[in-house]
Amino acid sequence: MSGAHENAAERERAITEEVLAAFSATPDPRLRAIMRSLIGHLHAFAREVRLTDREWQTAIAFLTRAGHLTDERRQEFILLSDVLGLSMLTVALNAPDTPGATEATVLGPFFVDDAPEIPLGGDLAQGAPGTPCHVSGRIRSTDGSPVGGALLDVWGADEDGLYDVQYPGEHCAGRGRLRADPDGGFRFWTVLPTPYPIPHDGPAGDLLTACGRGPMRPAHLHFKVTAPGHRTLITHLFVAGDPHLDRDAVFGVRDSLVVEAEHHEGGTAPDGSQPRGAWASMTHDLVLAPDHGSAPGR
Amino acid sequence: MSGAHENAAERERAITEEVLAAFSATPDPRLRAIMRSLIGHLHAFAREVRLTDREWQTAIAFLTRAGHLTDERRQEFILLSDVLGLSMLTVALNAPDTPGATEATVLGPFFVDDAPEIPLGGDLAQGAPGTPCHVSGRIRSTDGSPVGGALLDVWGADEDGLYDVQYPGEHCAGRGRLRADPDGGFRFWTVLPTPYPIPHDGPAGDLLTACGRGPMRPAHLHFKVTAPGHRTLITHLFVAGDPHLDRDAVFGVRDSLVVEAEHHEGGTAPDGSQPRGAWASMTHDLVLAPDHGSAPGR
Repeated sequence: MSGAHENAAERERAITEEVLAAFSATPDPRLRAIMRSLIGHLHAFAREVRLTDREWQTAIAFLTRAGHLTDERRQEFILLSDVLGLSMLTVALNAPDTPGATEATVLGPFFVDDAPEIPLGGDLAQGAPGTPCHVSGRIRSTDGSPVGGALLDVWGADEDGLYDVQYPGEHCAGRGRLRADPDGGFRFWTVLPTPYPIPHDGPAGDLLTACGRGPMRPAHLHFKVTAPGHRTLITHLFVAGDPHLDRDAVFGVRDSLVVEAEHHEGGTAPDGSQPRGAWASMTHDLVLAPDHGSAPGR
Repeated sequence: MSGAHENAAERERAITEEVLAAFSATPDPRLRAIMRSLIGHLHAFAREVRLTDREWQTAIAFLTRAGHLTDERRQEFILLSDVLGLSMLTVALNAPDTPGATEATVLGPFFVDDAPEIPLGGDLAQGAPGTPCHVSGRIRSTDGSPVGGALLDVWGADEDGLYDVQYPGEHCAGRGRLRADPDGGFRFWTVLPTPYPIPHDGPAGDLLTACGRGPMRPAHLHFKVTAPGHRTLITHLFVAGDPHLDRDAVFGVRDSLVVEAEHHEGGTAPDGSQPRGAWASMTHDLVLAPDHGSAPGR
């Protein structure tokens, strides 16, 4: 029997070697390295778990369903990458090794490239339902100098846990683009982030359920900050005290990104306005790493 | 600098550990093992190649395109699995360790579950263009005994390299289902297989091109053989002398499956008929492994 099993292992190994050899003529060295590593790990996975025909069929059907669900508004492959931790790992792999810079986290599937410009201090909620929240801070470089005129993209879910693009129709809310002042200062109104489930009515959600995991993300606000001479920063600010901070469905939480949200009732806001009813405020500086000629981030 | 890199490696490793921990509560032990192995290899791949944001985006777009191309007639994820050698490896992982049994190979994307029944000795070409080819042999068990009444599904491409399902409309040709006689004998007419490219106008084809590989499969005829008390056999017969035998795009060739096709001009065929013009013949026995209570194959 041992002989038969050794033969089986040799036969399996020979298939992997044949496939690796076929990819060895890949002209581009970077693609060649990627394909060799991908095939090595894909085959090692299949051998390690002794993948059955039925499981292979399940995987094909799973990917097919993910593909059919994906359109302009829903990106199931990004969700899959997110719940498998690949997105967050890729962020870490590409993060600058610069002490002091704000940590990066996942972009997520809800970024929109041409968000409306909002004046500094303006309200990007644009009617999104939720508790008004004043957000402020400074954009700095790791040497402490202010990054005046940095461009901030900010986006977040409303109090129902939905981004504007998840509503039918052309609807823009809870999203905007603004410029820091010459001292790097930024301030705007939006709605206080609340925890929400990632879209979980597809294969990514089924996987979470089958694996005893939940679809919730702790409350957070997305930032993308670009400025000449600096690496683009893609990050979140998380709201301290959220019960989902230790079980983010997409593994995006970094302790350094968790920020207190102060709760207020009436009174005077940092911009001198006098909100009626409940409102919140958050303040946090965002620190950019200098760009030493590396390729721009996504 | 070394310290910074060690920190980066620790940070990356910590992400993988966090993801593995999240999947450790998966109730089903088989799914748990699969997910842990999958995440381990997926993350190791990304770390090994230092996957960039841009490459990650390319992968998401690649999978999205594969999903959108996939429908009832085209299965791009199976093609991808095929050209990465995963399909053939999965076949090998599930093949019985039974000396003497006919080797298995890939099912491919063109199998149809309800092919028309063809009488023994009949013509399953059903008008498919090509050189008539008489195919015969015996279905045997590994102990040498005939497997009478075994059910054979046979399918192949026509001389233009296309399967019936690749033509528009409902069209059935080059495909049929027949039963071996009580001595395990089978015989039928079809068209002589010719080499053909797998569908290569999608991402799988682009990958082949980028990797300096061709899309061709050597000429072959597909068989699926089922019989009570035996493992289902899914295999091909390849035509000896085909120039693509050593570079099958899907890695399906096994030396033991390569069979001479004899070429004839007129004369008398094995079934006593007198073909006009050129025809071919192939003969090969198919040997089934006994099924010791294992799950039925796909």
